Amino acid sequence: MGSSSAAASAPWKQLLLSSIQANSRLKHSSYFQLATVSSDGRPSNRTVVFRGFQDGSDKIIINTDTRSRKIDDLKHSSFAEICWYFTETWEQFRISGPVDVIDGTNPDPLKLEQRQKSWFASSVNSRLQYMAPSPRLPVIEPPPPSQTPSLDPSIGPVAAFCLLVLDPDQVDYLNLKSNERLMFTSDINKLWTSEKVNP
Amino acid sequence: MGSSSAAASAPWKQLLLSSIQANSRLKHSSYFQLATVSSDGRPSNRTVVFRGFQDGSDKIIINTDTRSRKIDDLKHSSFAEICWYFTETWEQFRISGPVDVIDGTNPDPLKLEQRQKSWFASSVNSRLQYMAPSPRLPVIEPPPPSQTPSLDPSIGPVAAFCLLVLDPDQVDYLNLKSNERLMFTSDINKLWTSEKVNP
Repeated sequence: MGSSSAAASAPWKQLLLSSIQANSRLKHSSYFQLATVSSDGRPSNRTVVFRGFQDGSDKIIINTDTRSRKIDDLKHSSFAEICWYFTETWEQFRISGPVDVIDGTNPDPLKLEQRQKSWFASSVNSRLQYMAPSPRLPVIEPPPPSQTPSLDPSIGPVAAFCLLVLDPDQVDYLNLKSNERLMFTSDINKLWTSEKVNP
Repeated sequence: MGSSSAAASAPWKQLLLSSIQANSRLKHSSYFQLATVSSDGRPSNRTVVFRGFQDGSDKIIINTDTRSRKIDDLKHSSFAEICWYFTETWEQFRISGPVDVIDGTNPDPLKLEQRQKSWFASSVNSRLQYMAPSPRLPVIEPPPPSQTPSLDPSIGPVAAFCLLVLDPDQVDYLNLKSNERLMFTSDINKLWTSEKVNP
């Protein structure tokens, strides 16, 4: 603690920020795949949207629905791995670490504040998804008459809105153009080391 | 068995073939993310290349290196989930099922034949990867003088070449343009049912 390596941001973060920048003309460049482990021991994998880093840290923010299966997965096994492939620059980041699940019942006021911040940072259209019928339940046809929910933009997060905060402890970077691979590993004090390895 | 539903190909396959076709101008449309579970219980996730369906079936073929970590993962826990996001048509397929790992020591002659077929279906450049130094080992610099391996194109699969065959038992299809989601599930007789569910 207090050393410059601990104080500085993680060494892979600048690399990732550069990739985000270089691929930013593509809408899908902010999408990545998040793998978790289900309670039956099988892996799950789905596309989610990058919502930024938490307050200048290297923790990654994802918005999700408390009614989605990934919440059950993470309550059973808190680790996840992001696979983020950048189609323009042919770079892949595999980012692994434990995930903090922050819903409206969280006892920590700071975390609730983060959740609120992320809610207001989303578009009203995004927010409306959390008022839609439960994901994965059978569709009721014809739809009930008053199915289009309305939302006051000044109202805070609804119950289904949930924040996921992934705290990376391992990052595997692969560049398919230069054929280079770097492995970043952190110790319990969040001191990072990196090594150039065979792709 | 013998019913038309069992004889016909899986109901999600035509949907997937249409998406592959509609996105085919993009090189990366044949890439997807494969999630597995490591022996320490953490999820792993990486980009791999779709190598087609096995002999007209609905089993999905992936080529990989026996020295990669996914082989250890699959020996420990044989299930995987593919997340395949099509960036042109905004469609996602989550394809889950057990994976058969077929390396050169496989006792089944038919499986060895499939492995050989997939080897010869790959480009010579792809094949050369399996003769490269072990993935994830530290890079030795400067590289040894004779590092560029040569390969006789008529020679069969090298030891590191391995076939993965994923046999889907669950497919979750999401269309972000129409906001529709379909869940396909198969029973032990490989009879598929589908249901329209909330996205």
